[in-house]
Amino acid sequence: MKRAKLQCVRCFKDFPLELVNARCGDCDEPLEVRYDLGPIPRDWFTVPRGGPFFERYAPFYSYLKTAPSLSLGEGGTSLIRANHVSERVRLRELLFKNETQNPTWTFKDRGTALSLQNAFSLGYRRIGTLSSGNMGASVAAFGSRAGMDTFILLKENVPGEKIDALAVYGVKAIRVSGNYGDVYNKTSELGNRFDIYFSISDEPMRVEGYKSLAFEVYEQTGYNPPDYVALPVGSGGLCRGVLKGFEELHAAGLVGTVPRFIGVQTEGCSPTVDAYEKGIDRIERFVDPLTLDHVLENPYPPSGNQVIRKIRANGGVLLKVRNDEILNAQVLLAQEGIFAQPASATALAGVIRCAEKGLMSEDARVVSVVTGSGLKYPSVLKEFDYSPIETSLDGLAGTLRRLIKQGAKG
Amino acid sequence: MKRAKLQCVRCFKDFPLELVNARCGDCDEPLEVRYDLGPIPRDWFTVPRGGPFFERYAPFYSYLKTAPSLSLGEGGTSLIRANHVSERVRLRELLFKNETQNPTWTFKDRGTALSLQNAFSLGYRRIGTLSSGNMGASVAAFGSRAGMDTFILLKENVPGEKIDALAVYGVKAIRVSGNYGDVYNKTSELGNRFDIYFSISDEPMRVEGYKSLAFEVYEQTGYNPPDYVALPVGSGGLCRGVLKGFEELHAAGLVGTVPRFIGVQTEGCSPTVDAYEKGIDRIERFVDPLTLDHVLENPYPPSGNQVIRKIRANGGVLLKVRNDEILNAQVLLAQEGIFAQPASATALAGVIRCAEKGLMSEDARVVSVVTGSGLKYPSVLKEFDYSPIETSLDGLAGTLRRLIKQGAKG
Repeated sequence: MKRAKLQCVRCFKDFPLELVNARCGDCDEPLEVRYDLGPIPRDWFTVPRGGPFFERYAPFYSYLKTAPSLSLGEGGTSLIRANHVSERVRLRELLFKNETQNPTWTFKDRGTALSLQNAFSLGYRRIGTLSSGNMGASVAAFGSRAGMDTFILLKENVPGEKIDALAVYGVKAIRVSGNYGDVYNKTSELGNRFDIYFSISDEPMRVEGYKSLAFEVYEQTGYNPPDYVALPVGSGGLCRGVLKGFEELHAAGLVGTVPRFIGVQTEGCSPTVDAYEKGIDRIERFVDPLTLDHVLENPYPPSGNQVIRKIRANGGVLLKVRNDEILNAQVLLAQEGIFAQPASATALAGVIRCAEKGLMSEDARVVSVVTGSGLKYPSVLKEFDYSPIETSLDGLAGTLRRLIKQGAKG
Repeated sequence: MKRAKLQCVRCFKDFPLELVNARCGDCDEPLEVRYDLGPIPRDWFTVPRGGPFFERYAPFYSYLKTAPSLSLGEGGTSLIRANHVSERVRLRELLFKNETQNPTWTFKDRGTALSLQNAFSLGYRRIGTLSSGNMGASVAAFGSRAGMDTFILLKENVPGEKIDALAVYGVKAIRVSGNYGDVYNKTSELGNRFDIYFSISDEPMRVEGYKSLAFEVYEQTGYNPPDYVALPVGSGGLCRGVLKGFEELHAAGLVGTVPRFIGVQTEGCSPTVDAYEKGIDRIERFVDPLTLDHVLENPYPPSGNQVIRKIRANGGVLLKVRNDEILNAQVLLAQEGIFAQPASATALAGVIRCAEKGLMSEDARVVSVVTGSGLKYPSVLKEFDYSPIETSLDGLAGTLRRLIKQGAKG
């Protein structure tokens, strides 16, 4: 068996697998794990396997020595059918992959789990990340569980509620003034100097973690993946990971085709979509980004160029949606029973746009990824201008009668 | 096959299964589902089954006609080992059942799922509940998914953040002034009058939903259930449900013994524990209840008497813990990687108390149920007096060096 390695996604130069948090010096592009993956018979999948996803899908993580006790039960999230929206958008099947059921209630846990496994296997006793919210909570949880010293670097203007969410773990939170991109670039040097494994947005193991979502969808659709997968695009790590997962299923001979990807950004921060639409290869820094919940607010996504290359090759599409479309999608998701944070609703907003524009046939089967819980950003609820009806015990019957007459909507 | 029925938990009088939200008029005690459950071979469990828990464990729900499309992927939560606490409390094995991975991030979803299935099967098109928080969000999510008119009755002093959490679903929230117990009692009459299926705290189907947690633990422990199960006790519905699940596994010939139950309340509201400790059969109303997050603040739990009877017969224990023990347990849970709401940490606080008092042998295997996400009650984080270290990009290396010297704790 050939030794597993890291490889530049652009020039394909090889790097050792043990390299942590590095990019290709020539291309300034991310690295990706390459390893031997032979054919896998479909029967392999039909045997029930427990444990963390890196054990359940062991052939796809054969390069990693793992410690299951450090898992938090990440992944294994539900795939549920849209009961209401699919009619409206006229799709054969619309399914939601509910990543809010992860241990810290966002998809980030899949990536953090694998970064942490790698850190542990390489002998690291310190872990860190650079985050404006969800990733910080995820690394804090996994770092605490592993008993590692945990460092969360926060950007200058991170809201207080995101800092509060770290309090219970007691990790070291450090707010760094200055440019976010500069801090990102510095984590590589600081990690080497202080023996800290920085698990940042698109580091190779994070991408490897995200690919597990594809394996689950493969199983949950009865080994018959959808025609399209829609997801929000921030740094680009999630998009790269899930796509890599389907490509590996294809390489292993398990699926005939790879779903087409619908990558969605918001008008408030769309550097990847803008470059894609201009037909250029390199993203440009987005000026003054502002998004509803700051989750997708990365003005210069480190995997932006690679996402553009991959989506073009994949036959998918990158598009951006407006805030009102996102908030509308958030309500539609709630009607399906899922309270998602605005960034998560971006994917559904993209699906609706594609369907209405006729970019997908009515015969299409679509999986839309719901990346994180609405509880992560409760402030948005204030915008609903919602208040309860007040009544007394004696007045309750009358109130119910009145509401039923009005046609109270569930 | 005998027809399934409801039965008073105290006098064993029979009632029709179709009766909704009723208690025994003679005893003022809850009703419980009784149905034919023959022996089940263990092999039945080793066949992998997908879908909602009421399909996966179909023999235990044979009395119900189900509609899987209304499921939100509830249940199927992780069971993870304590990496740090178990050493401290000296137990052979301490496991956490992480119910925060449910669709609305609390265990309530298991109960709501089954109530909703029953409501749908009986032809109801309106659903409701009486809630001070978590149950309201759960019923709102499931009611919306089912396209039912959804009515959430709230108690007088419900905090604004709990109301906000309902906004995205657009359900009808009604704040009722007056005594909570009186409103509880009135739901039965109002439900009949307005054709609303009120899925309240300990209605029979809710209890049936909670029993699925036992089946999962049975599988996740390799068909070898723990010696003890610890859980918070509010209305008593969860405790009754999980215990019923283990009893049914026993009745089906799958386990030799039923785990002993550790039911935990807080000193701020301990009506069930107080009656238990006094050796009396009937709970007394708790005066001026006040708990950290209001979740366990039920002064007159409707299943209180039944919980006492069951725990006595089971050989378990009921105990109460102080707020400082709860907050300590919340931090210990975070060190294991789980951010739980204070009410959820109550169970672990009870386990620690039992272990330290020598009530459990060091050989014991314990499952502690983590009932809900810490994101449900972020206010508690303010008490941690936590703030990030401030630095600049240039100062970052120095800051990291200093923290590492101080022995930064993960």
